[in-house]
Order: sequence, then C-alpha cells, then structure tokens
Amino acid sequence: MASESGKLWGGRFVGAVDPIMEKFNSSIAYDRHLWEADVQGSKAYSRGLEKAGLLTKAEMDQILCGLDKVAEEWAQGTFKLSPNDEDIHTANERRLKELIGETAGKLHTGRSRNDQVVTDLRLWMRQNCSKLSTLLWELIRTMVDRAEAERDILFPGYTHLQRAQPIRWSHWILSHAVALTRDSERLLEVQKRVNVLPLGSGAIAGNPLGVDRELLRAELNFGAITLNSMDATSERDFVAEFLFWASLCMTHLSRMAEDLILYGTKEFSFVQLSDAYSTGSSLMPQKKNPDSLELIRSKAGRVFGREDKEAVFEVSDTMSAVLQVATGVISTLQIHRENMARALSPDMLATDLAYYLVRKGMPFRQAHEASGKAVFMAETKGVALNQLSLTELQTISPLFLGDVSHVWDYGHSVEQYAALGGTARASVDWQIGQVRALLRAQQP
Amino acid sequence: MASESGKLWGGRFVGAVDPIMEKFNSSIAYDRHLWEADVQGSKAYSRGLEKAGLLTKAEMDQILCGLDKVAEEWAQGTFKLSPNDEDIHTANERRLKELIGETAGKLHTGRSRNDQVVTDLRLWMRQNCSKLSTLLWELIRTMVDRAEAERDILFPGYTHLQRAQPIRWSHWILSHAVALTRDSERLLEVQKRVNVLPLGSGAIAGNPLGVDRELLRAELNFGAITLNSMDATSERDFVAEFLFWASLCMTHLSRMAEDLILYGTKEFSFVQLSDAYSTGSSLMPQKKNPDSLELIRSKAGRVFGREDKEAVFEVSDTMSAVLQVATGVISTLQIHRENMARALSPDMLATDLAYYLVRKGMPFRQAHEASGKAVFMAETKGVALNQLSLTELQTISPLFLGDVSHVWDYGHSVEQYAALGGTARASVDWQIGQVRALLRAQQP
Amino acid sequence: MASESGKLWGGRFVGAVDPIMEKFNSSIAYDRHLWEADVQGSKAYSRGLEKAGLLTKAEMDQILCGLDKVAEEWAQGTFKLSPNDEDIHTANERRLKELIGETAGKLHTGRSRNDQVVTDLRLWMRQNCSKLSTLLWELIRTMVDRAEAERDILFPGYTHLQRAQPIRWSHWILSHAVALTRDSERLLEVQKRVNVLPLGSGAIAGNPLGVDRELLRAELNFGAITLNSMDATSERDFVAEFLFWASLCMTHLSRMAEDLILYGTKEFSFVQLSDAYSTGSSLMPQKKNPDSLELIRSKAGRVFGREDKEAVFEVSDTMSAVLQVATGVISTLQIHRENMARALSPDMLATDLAYYLVRKGMPFRQAHEASGKAVFMAETKGVALNQLSLTELQTISPLFLGDVSHVWDYGHSVEQYAALGGTARASVDWQIGQVRALLRAQQP
Amino acid sequence: MASESGKLWGGRFVGAVDPIMEKFNSSIAYDRHLWEADVQGSKAYSRGLEKAGLLTKAEMDQILCGLDKVAEEWAQGTFKLSPNDEDIHTANERRLKELIGETAGKLHTGRSRNDQVVTDLRLWMRQNCSKLSTLLWELIRTMVDRAEAERDILFPGYTHLQRAQPIRWSHWILSHAVALTRDSERLLEVQKRVNVLPLGSGAIAGNPLGVDRELLRAELNFGAITLNSMDATSERDFVAEFLFWASLCMTHLSRMAEDLILYGTKEFSFVQLSDAYSTGSSLMPQKKNPDSLELIRSKAGRVFGREDKEAVFEVSDTMSAVLQVATGVISTLQIHRENMARALSPDMLATDLAYYLVRKGMPFRQAHEASGKAVFMAETKGVALNQLSLTELQTISPLFLGDVSHVWDYGHSVEQYAALGGTARASVDWQIGQVRALLRAQQP
Repeated sequence: MASESGKLWGGRFVGAVDPIMEKFNSSIAYDRHLWEADVQGSKAYSRGLEKAGLLTKAEMDQILCGLDKVAEEWAQGTFKLSPNDEDIHTANERRLKELIGETAGKLHTGRSRNDQVVTDLRLWMRQNCSKLSTLLWELIRTMVDRAEAERDILFPGYTHLQRAQPIRWSHWILSHAVALTRDSERLLEVQKRVNVLPLGSGAIAGNPLGVDRELLRAELNFGAITLNSMDATSERDFVAEFLFWASLCMTHLSRMAEDLILYGTKEFSFVQLSDAYSTGSSLMPQKKNPDSLELIRSKAGRVFGREDKEAVFEVSDTMSAVLQVATGVISTLQIHRENMARALSPDMLATDLAYYLVRKGMPFRQAHEASGKAVFMAETKGVALNQLSLTELQTISPLFLGDVSHVWDYGHSVEQYAALGGTARASVDWQIGQVRALLRAQQP
Repeated sequence: MASESGKLWGGRFVGAVDPIMEKFNSSIAYDRHLWEADVQGSKAYSRGLEKAGLLTKAEMDQILCGLDKVAEEWAQGTFKLSPNDEDIHTANERRLKELIGETAGKLHTGRSRNDQVVTDLRLWMRQNCSKLSTLLWELIRTMVDRAEAERDILFPGYTHLQRAQPIRWSHWILSHAVALTRDSERLLEVQKRVNVLPLGSGAIAGNPLGVDRELLRAELNFGAITLNSMDATSERDFVAEFLFWASLCMTHLSRMAEDLILYGTKEFSFVQLSDAYSTGSSLMPQKKNPDSLELIRSKAGRVFGREDKEAVFEVSDTMSAVLQVATGVISTLQIHRENMARALSPDMLATDLAYYLVRKGMPFRQAHEASGKAVFMAETKGVALNQLSLTELQTISPLFLGDVSHVWDYGHSVEQYAALGGTARASVDWQIGQVRALLRAQQP
Repeated sequence: MASESGKLWGGRFVGAVDPIMEKFNSSIAYDRHLWEADVQGSKAYSRGLEKAGLLTKAEMDQILCGLDKVAEEWAQGTFKLSPNDEDIHTANERRLKELIGETAGKLHTGRSRNDQVVTDLRLWMRQNCSKLSTLLWELIRTMVDRAEAERDILFPGYTHLQRAQPIRWSHWILSHAVALTRDSERLLEVQKRVNVLPLGSGAIAGNPLGVDRELLRAELNFGAITLNSMDATSERDFVAEFLFWASLCMTHLSRMAEDLILYGTKEFSFVQLSDAYSTGSSLMPQKKNPDSLELIRSKAGRVFGREDKEAVFEVSDTMSAVLQVATGVISTLQIHRENMARALSPDMLATDLAYYLVRKGMPFRQAHEASGKAVFMAETKGVALNQLSLTELQTISPLFLGDVSHVWDYGHSVEQYAALGGTARASVDWQIGQVRALLRAQQP
Repeated sequence: MASESGKLWGGRFVGAVDPIMEKFNSSIAYDRHLWEADVQGSKAYSRGLEKAGLLTKAEMDQILCGLDKVAEEWAQGTFKLSPNDEDIHTANERRLKELIGETAGKLHTGRSRNDQVVTDLRLWMRQNCSKLSTLLWELIRTMVDRAEAERDILFPGYTHLQRAQPIRWSHWILSHAVALTRDSERLLEVQKRVNVLPLGSGAIAGNPLGVDRELLRAELNFGAITLNSMDATSERDFVAEFLFWASLCMTHLSRMAEDLILYGTKEFSFVQLSDAYSTGSSLMPQKKNPDSLELIRSKAGRVFGREDKEAVFEVSDTMSAVLQVATGVISTLQIHRENMARALSPDMLATDLAYYLVRKGMPFRQAHEASGKAVFMAETKGVALNQLSLTELQTISPLFLGDVSHVWDYGHSVEQYAALGGTARASVDWQIGQVRALLRAQQP
C-alpha cells in the first residue's frame, strides 16, 4: 500500500515510516528468548497443515528441515538478525524463506501472529517454570536438611523486633521453608494453566482450514486446548499469575533475607555470611556487607508490580538467580550458637511464668497480670526476672511455690510447646517430616 | 507499668497515651465484620481448653453460653461498643467478662491475639469466598444461557478497535465467559488455602498446654492445620491471593464492560443498556450514561494494588456488588441485531479471500499479498471489496474463478471457522457444552 | 423517562433501578467531608449568577441564607441524610430546596455536577494541605530543636546495617529532617496547582450564560482559573500529585521509623520509646512493642498506590495522624548515650586509618588496602584494631609513626568531617542553620 | 581477606565467590549510560583534590588527561569492558589505572562509591530532563499550531462516550495541550531538585580532607549543594519524582491516544492516521492498525509503578520516543470534517434548549426537566429533537416561542460558551494565547 504522509502542521519530518516508530514497535530485544519455542511451535503447525492437506508431505519435510537449520543457527550463535526483524517470529520466518524459498510462505496459513506469539510464550514458560520448580525444591530441601541437623540450638524468637520467646533455630528455618512450600504448590497450579494450547485460534474467529487442534496439542504435549479463539489469543492470565507467584515467593525470600541481615549485624551476631556471599566497601576497609541478602531484598522490588510480557523474561531470570543464591547462602551460613544462647534472657520466660500460674488454676488474664507485676518488680529492683526470690514472688501470688524454679530452664521452656506446629523437639521433627512429605509430592 | 512520658523537646503535649496514637491503632471500624467468626473461633477454643483440662465442663458451658449471648447482641444490633474496644476481639472479650465474670479470663489461655485474628479472618474469608463463588457461577451461567439463545446473530469482531472478521455474538459472550471460568477455578484454589487452621499456634513458639489442634480443626471444619507456628501467625499469603484473584477477575469484568460501553455508543449502536443500569446527567437532559459499566471499570482501579487486611472487607463487598451488577446488565441488555448485521462489510472478508487462494494452492504469504492488492484496488476505485469484477480480480491472480462469489456470504464465512474454539455454529455449541461442564464441576 | 427492564435471560430480578447499582453508585459515605466546601462553592456561584443577571438580588439572598442554614445543620450535626442522597452535592441541593423552595433550582444554572465536584474537592484539599503543611513544619522544627540540643552525642553510623563510621546523633536526626524539608517544598508546589479554580466550566463546552469566572475566582480566593473547560472538569492531576507527595513523605517517615525500631531493640539499646507510643502483648507479659513506629511503617503501605478520590480523604487523615505521632515520638524519645558510646569500636576508624596514610602521601587505593591488612591482622590476632603495636603497623607500611595514636579518638574522627554537610560540629551547626532558614521560608 | 566458604548442608557447590552472585550484583548492563557523566564528575573531583592539596598539579593533569582518553574511547566505541567491571565506575577506574598507572588510585581519595553514583546519576538526569523538556515543548507547540489552524471545525464532545455537546475540534486539542503544560511545569520543578550536587559527602560522615564542595558545585554547574551527607548519598527522591512525572505525562498522552483510536474507528471516522504511524496485520489483508497510538497506551503501563534506577534509563528512552511519535501523529493526522459535522445531532442541543428556558426566567432544574420531556417526546414520536413543532413544545412549557429555532444552529450553540475556558471562538483564541504564553515562559 502506498504511503502518503506529508506533515501538515509543524513537528519533525516523517518519512514513509517514522523510524522512531519502528524502533518503538520492535520487541526483538527481549523476545529472542523465544527462538526455540518458536521453532518448536512452527514444526508442530506444519505437521497440522500437512494432516489438513494444506501442505504436501514434501513441503512439510522441506519446512521441518529448514526450521531445524534455523534452530541450529540460533544454538550455535550464528543466526544473524536483520534490521527489519521486528520480532523473533518475523526473524525466523525471514530466515526460513532464505533457506527454503517460497514454501516458507505456506507455514503461516491460517496462523495469526497472536496465535504464534502466545503459543511460543506458553512453550517457553512451561519449560522455565519447570526449571524454577526444581530450583525452589532444592532450596527447600537444603533448608530442611539444615533444620534437621541443628534441631538442638535455641535462640530468641522475636515479635516486633523485640525478644519474645525462646525457640529452636530449626523452628525459624522451618517457618520460612513452610512458606516456600506454598510457593511450590502455587507454581504447580500456574504450570497447569500455562500448559494449555492456543494454537489454531487464528486472529479472532478461529481456524477455517481444517487444522486438527487435538493433533497440535498432542504434538506439543500440552495438557488441554483453549476453549474460545478470541479469549485464547488475547488473554495473558498465565503471565499475571506467574508474576504474582514470583512476587509472593520474593516476599518470602525477602523476609528471610531481612531476618538474616539483622542476625548478622554486630549487635545480634547470630550468624555469619560466607565470604562468597559478601562484598566489601570501596571506602571503608573494615566493611563486609551482606550484599547477597540485600540484593534479594532489592530484587523483590523489581519483581513487584511488573505486568508485561517483557517482565516474564527478566523475572524468570531473577527468580532463577535468587533461588540459587538463597540456596548458596543457607548452605554456607555459619551460626554462632554461643551468641544465640547468650541472647536468651529470663524475661522471655514471662509467658511461661504466667502459664505456671494457669496450671495452678489461675485464669490466664490474671496470670498475665501477675507475671507482668513480676517483670515490673524485677525491673524496679534491677535484677533479672529469675532472680526474684520465692518470697518476693509470693507477694504477687501465693500460688508461687518452690517448683517455680523449673520455669527458668530454656530447654524445658521450648519442650512445652508440643502441640503440632510448635517449637518442641517432637513438633519440629513432625514439621520436618511434613515438609519432606510435601517435597516428595511436589518433586519436579 | 507506670508511664512517664514528659516531652523533652518541643512537639505537642502527650499524656499517658497519645490519643491520636490510640485512634491510629484501632481497627474496630473495619474488623467488626469479624464478630461472628470471632465468636465461632472462641467457642471452638473453649472446647479445646476443656479437653486439655484447662477448663472444667461447667466453666466451658458458662463461656459457650456467654459467647452465644454476645453473638445474639451483634445479630440483633444491640451490642454496644465501648471507646476502649480497639478491635473486635477486645470488644467481645470485654463483653463476655461483663456477662459471665472472671471465667472469661480463662478463654484466652495460651491463645495469642495473632492466633485469634488470623483464625477469625480465615473463617470470615472462607464464608465470603464461598458466596462470591456462587455469584460468579451465576454470572457465567447467565452468560452461557444468553450465548446459547443468540447463536445465530453475527456481528463484527474487532482487533485494535478496527473491524477484523465477522463472528457470532455468542462467540464474543463466550470469550468473556471462558475467562471467568478461570477465575472460578482460581477461587477454588484460594479457598483451599484459606481453609487451613492456624489456631493453637500461640504467639510464636506454639501452644504449651496440651490443646489438641486436630480437635480444633474438626470443630471448625477446616481442611488441614498449619505446619509451623511462627509462619501460621504471620503469613497472609491467602489475603494476597484473594486480592490477586479479585484483581484478575475485575480485569475480565472491566474488559467486558469496556466492550459494552463501546457497543452502546451512538456510533456503534449494537446494544442498549437497561434503564436499571443507566443514569442521566444533571446538566444535559438528553444524556443516558452507562454508569453501571463505568463503575465496574472504575471499581477495578479500586481493587488493584490493595494489600492490607482492611482491603479484604472492601474488596469482598465490591466483588459481590460487581458480580451482581454484571449479571443484571447481561440479563437485561437489549441488542440491535440489524445494526450488528449492517456493520459487517466486505473488507472484513479479505482474510477469507486470501484463504480462497490458499485453497487453490497459493502459499499464504502470497495470498495475503494478493488479497491486500484487491483491498487496495477496491479502495482506489471507491467500491466495496465484493464489487470488484472477476476480470479485475484476475488481474491480481488467475486463480480467481467464478466461485469466488461464495466468499461474500457472512454466514458462510463464520461457518468455516469450525476448528475447536472457533466461531462456527458447531464450535460455539462445543464451547457452550464445555463451559456448562465446567459449571457443573465448579458448582459451589 | 420511562424504564423498561424486563430480564431476558436468567440472572436475578431487577426492578426499575437495581438497588445494588444504586448503592454501588453512591459516594456519600466519603464525600460528606466536602459539606463545607460545597456550601462555600455554591455561595460564590450564586453571587456569580446574580452578577450575570440570572438571579435577582432577592433570589440570591434567599439562596445565601438557605445555604448558611444548611451549613449550620452540618456544623451542629443535625443534618439528616435521606436514602436518596447519592452524594454530598445532591444532599445539600435537596435540603436547600426543602428550606427555600423552587428558587433552589436556579442555583445550578449552567453548573454541571463535575464542575461542582472538582471545585469542592479543590477547596477541601486547599484547606487540608495547608493543615498538613503546618504539621510537617512542626515535626521538622521539633527535630531540629532536638538535633541542636544533642550535638555532642556520638554513635555509630550504619551502612548495610553494618557499623560504618562514628557520627553525631544530630547528624542522623538531620539526615531525616533534611528529607522532610523536600516534602515541605513539594507540598507547596502541590498547593499551588490545587489553588486553581475550575468553576464555570459547565459539563464540557464551558459556561454559556455570561458568568464571570474572574469574579468567582476572587470570591473563592483562588490563585488562577483553569484554561480549558474539558480539561478542567476531568483532570485530577492535583489528586495524583497529592497522593504522590504523601507516598514520598511516608517513605521518609517510614525509614526513620525503621531506624528507630532497630535502635530500640534489646540488641542495639540506643533509644527508648515513651510509654505513650508503645503497647504491650496480650500473651507475653514482658513485651513492650514499638507500635507507633510500626504503624507509621504499615500506614506507608496504605498510602502507596492509592489513586482515587476516596483515597484523598483517607490519606489526608493518615498523614495528619502520622505527622503528629512522629512529632510526639521524637519529642519524647529517650536516648541511652552510654550505649551509643559503647557501640563505637576501633574498626569503624579503619577509613580514618587509611586517610592517615593518604595524608602521608600514599594513594588512596593503596591506603585502603593497607588499612584492610591492619583490620585483618587485628582479627587474626584477636585484638582490637587500635591495639596493634606501632611495630606491627609498620610491617604493613613504614609510613605509620607514633602520631597514628591520634586516629583512635572518636571525637577527633568526627571533627575531621568538616566539609559542608559532614558530621563535624561546625558542619552540623551549618546544617541546623540551613534547615532553620528553610523553615522560616516555608512557614505555613 | 581470606575466604573460607565450605558448604555445610546440601546446596550446590560454591567457590570463592559464587558466580551467580557476581552477575546478580552487576549493573554495568544499564549504568554504562553514565559513562560521560562519570568522567565529568571525576574531572571535577580531581580539581577539588588538587585545590585541597591532595593532588599535585602534575598529578591532576595526568588524571584529567587520562579521563579524557577514557571518554574518547567511549565516544568512539573502542572502550573494552572486562568481565570484572561490575559497574561503569569500576570500569572507568580500571581503565584509567591502565592508562596512567598508580596515580589513578588517588582520584578516589575521600570519595565513596555512593557519592560517585549519585553524582553521576544527577548529571545524566539533568541532561536528559532537559532533552525531554524540549521534546515536550515541541509537541505542545505542534498542538497549538494545529488548534489555531482548525478553529472553525465543530464536532461532538463526549462524556461517558455518549455524545454530549457540540464543541470545536480545537477545544479538544487544547484540552490535551493544557494538560501537557502542567507536565512541562512539573518537569521544571523536577529539574530544579535534580540540579543539586551531592559530591563531597563520602560514605556517610562527609568529607574529612578539606575538599571544597562549593568549588565542586561551580565546576559542575549545579544550582546548590546537598545539606546532609547521610541523606545525600542515600536519597533518590529525584528519581521517584522523575518517574512520577513520566507516569502523569504518559497518562495524558495515553488518554489522547485513546480518544484518537476511537475517533479513527470505522464507526466514528473522524480522523485518519498517517501510514507512517500505522501497521498492517499478518493475517488480515484489509487491516490498518493504529499501532503508534496503541504503543503509546501500552508504554504507559511500562512507565507506571517503576521504582528503580534502572527504570530511569528505560523510562527516559520511552518518553523520548513517545513524545516524538505523538508529535509526528498530531502533525500528520488527517481529519474528516464532514463526518465530524454529520455526527452532530439535535439532541446534543438539549442543554441549550434548557438554557433557552432559563433565559426566559425558568429555574434551571425545571428547565432541565422540560427539556428532558422534549427529548422524550421526540424519541416517542421518532423524530429529531429539532423537528418538534412549536405547538408541541408549548405543551411542555408556554415559554417556548418562535425564537426557539435559533437553538438548533450548532455554530450559534458553541458561540454561547464564551466564558473563559469555553468553546466559543473568542475563548478558544484566549486559550491559544494563554498556552503560547506558557510556552514562551517554559521554553527550554
């Protein structure tokens, strides 16, 4: 079609097609990731065309052979992009035509660009979700292994960044591992919805040429076909779902990183990052910064709120790196168990002190108040909570007896929390067993 | 604990507790929605305490009876909030104590506020997701009914807001209905993860008093219990999932609304909204605005990007209203089938013209170009595409023969798109059958 | 206009107007905040109509008097909303008509609802931005006062949560105060663009009745009038700008809160929140949580990403509370200067050790490496950096002489940072002077 | 510092530094944009060091000369990145050392990486904001030129996508141009806050070596210096402000694009895009899609919600392309004035009909109702509103007289809207004058 585009009022010169517009419209910079999926989809479609009688056997073989050549060039890094290749699909089609001639033009019979783009994207995502699934699985397994090995180490559990109650170190690890098992479950659901074939939907009305979509599905090993051609070519729910999955998973990894950054400060000194996951400062010679953990946190910000197709490639790469770095961090982290033990203090047993009174029959709200009074008495006297004498405690409640001394044992404290999900050794073992069972069920 | 808070430097006066701070901290304005869930959770917990020997049978009965009274007051609108009731949980506990005295203090033995909040929220969400599931189901069913009844009406399918190909009106309806079936499926997955009981997790370390969490689960009819007490009290994945579900569902409803707004303009004139879903203008007497559809679109903006607990209540209400309004709109919409028919034009069959040549053996890319030449020839001559003479067409390609006249029949055009998912009558019937099968499978 | 809305296919019953739709469409729940602005705008408009000859003097007086009565009812809490009052503008007009009869109908001559809504919103925002400006100013002033009083207290400056260099406590306060001065400047710019009058723009085409917009502007004391009637009634840039302002200001307050939460942990123990800004735990008797600071952080999440008109009211309330709570927190915060001093350690002077070598002529990159070797030597020997003997240091570089001992004085260290903006006493004084000058310039 | 990082539990192998971690940490892929700013900043800093006596004149000259060589390599495309160049700053420093030897190590005396990064970013943004300012200015000027040339063309103004009132085509253009003048004003404010120099802030405590920050400011031509060294190195308000500016500007361009897409549909047929800004379909030969306008809309989504430094580069490029494409679109757009005229219909004058009655003394609310009755009567009779006879109109109100016929003249209608900002010719001329005055004031 001839182009006539004289400028009427001001503005800069525009030729037949504004070159800024062309660049603006190009997606090859990021959709080249799809080269393999594009070849795969085209091979299946040419088989569909042959079955429908729109390609002869010879034509199909010629196309299949040409596509294999295209793939080989990509794999070997010899594929040459031309300036007019606005996307990967145009590029592959252009190259195919160079290789096999006019027959290449038959490959696109009844297939719209949207049809092709969304099929390729689903093929690519199916493969990458599967890789991420494996990496996530590895991370959880590493965490459970570590939780199992270090079950006997106690340290402070925090709420509002204030010391709350003594817990097992493994209980902390498992709290993060359990969150990640939900991500693993959700990723499987995303994969299920990614694994639906749109090919054969045409531009909008469907395919009018007798192409058998079930055959295409079987060729490409999809779980199902899409139901409506208009919806199939335009919907990107699976992209939104994947990005949401990544956001939630990054939230979990980011929280874990935040805890570890804190535990690694001079002030906390519970853990020490491996040098492999730390960096120095260009100005301050003594610094060793937890850059791996900070990057995990900052990458989270990069994942949140992305909405476009381009995001899929970047987010997928980010998740892949983050999961591997997290696995590396966890598997090489050194812990300082003496500092952990030292950080436990008797006021963290104030809840246990209240429970002591509850077990003697006092309603909890009163017991809470009595224990609060003991905390205040200790603060006022400038002594630790466990240094109040029995006589002093008895001014608060006559229910305090000699056996109150058992309360002050941290090991005894955690062992009480034996309900399922709690921090008692048996309960932690149960958690480890449960997560291992999930791992077996979700094994990629 | 005594408070000492003299101001040291400037600033405004602060008393024992800054009243702005108190108001700031209060959530009763929105969490009162949880009253029923809170009573339900407390009743189950008191049964758990009794089983664990921490309440006598008589104490438990007293608490259960008191809680029923609290619920009755809420149900009858006679519950009186006191200014110090910072949240629904405090309010109910305060009232219970007024009703039954000190025994009320035993109810909270070993249960933290977080424990209680998250249990109540899950109970509430379980019920509301179930309601939304039903409303969504109703909407889809209404759409499929309508699609079935109006299968024989053709109108233009658009891409880029340009007329693309003739399709069935039902094909358009189904494209939106199919999108909603994914929302329905996703909501079921959210419900599965909502339906997990955290109660018995304490503040962080678990429950140390022998409360049987399996018994609590059975009492409250949850599908499973949470695995780790730290994770259980802090995670809100299910809230994020619900909000994401709502965002995606609203995206679908918003797109449908956008189409209908356009189809209802004077310029398109395909559909007419019922007066029940329109409003007038305070200034311009002739106006009839599609307010229901615009509200659906604008509410979408209100749903996106919400992240907090408060959002759950508002988003749930919004979704409930939106789904009902959408059902109302669809079930009362009038369509102008003559305008629809009139909007079909021969240039929309240019793709079919290319397929005509493909069927005669021309590669698609060449056929596309040939058909494009015909479009340009018609434009140049100022006639409709189907008014080009056979001789004229043959100057473009000798493959054009007399049977090209069959191309210009819109009914014949859509019938070609018979591959599954396409706009042919049989394929639309198949879609209706598939969606009905999904509806049966997802029936709430 | 007669309504005919029989349902055609399925769906729930719909009457003349779907009641869900009505509720859906109603904004009275939040726009009642605008009652005063609405009366103010209507009074000005009735004066404009009188000048244009569309109201007689007597009619205008009747309307002005009626509007004063409406305002009085709102002020005294006696205004009664009727179920049909969908927004504040309808409510006030309905009430005016009840009070003065048919003349009320003349008030809206040539004024569209959009015209009125956007004028009211600008009036309301102008007043509330001004209040927030004052509160922000108060907070900055409190911070500068405190910075001035505590200039001589040193403590660790952190990067990556690792101890970096000794700084003045005032330097930390000022780093946050300076950020807030930018918010103060930005708020003035927002106010400038809020303060533009749209009234007299009609629905879209403008006002055709000779109303003098300059007169309206003068009546309502706006700085300018809008330029284009279509843009005027539809643009909400000023709302987006206000919400962005709030987001950025909350980011700053949130970061400050985050630092203070950390400084208040047992592990850091630098500061202690006043009881007026802390709360306890329902389960753990010993807990004192920094709820004011956590609420500031969590409210930040509530401010980010809001986009609608409803958000303006909520965000404005939030900012008002947050600014006052922050002022209260800062003015009552206790600091533990001994703990601050104790947290300074010789390795934080490693940069100064490098500068010592720089001053003796060594290129910085070599000096950085030499100082790093000293840090490593000290770590290896298990001594503090300042306990390395001169002989030991000289094995690293012969440039180390007896005067290296001056490096180990923290007071001497901070005094070196005398370039403008640094942490030396003179520079901190300069900062205080600069911020005070800004406060004078920005005084609301 | 020696590295010891044996893996303790599971996970994959990690060497001295995890290679994934290194790649993860690298920013060279996007911050290479900063090469010129980096050289510029370093040259100024070396002058500062010389003035402070930390470099000899000869050393400074050597460094300046080396930096010029580095810049030359970048400009000529001969700069070779090494795999260890994690960012542009490291790369340039590494290359400088290769070129001039150990003296290069002196350049970084007292300058932290943060110091350098933020200075470079501000230099780069200053230049790019200035370019964008010019492009935006060009676009507005093109729009005003066009508005001036086409003042006499009328077409329908829409609200809720329903035809509302006749307006001038120029009134529509100006409604968008006026919105863009606010963007232009805001960009100037952003530039003001970008133009503040942080250099000389060190890592956190400031600069201890007597570097004169005023001298640095003058060297680099900044408007002011930052006030506090901690704030200076960490704050990125100016990035957030720039991204917000871009979001708001894109919202305006996106709305304009949305209108034009609609006006260009077959159904509206008001405008036609130049071929230079349209593309075809790979499947449907007749399609001509408004891709330029759709890309503007979709790029808006890419701009919203970006938050990071990387976004600055991409968003800046996007804005540059979008502003140029928008200028091209506007300057080459063809309009169909007959279709515009044909789309005006008498019911769009219903408001004028009400004003007719108002001018005869009827209160507006009654006049609105009377005009509404006339609309209903015309609809019922199946005639156009202006075809109701005087007798018929008089059954609605006796105030209708023979002069009502003047109402039905569209030209007369728009001329009534003469209040400032309205669509009358004089008011449109006033708008053009106002925008031209703003352009003169904001000329970059």
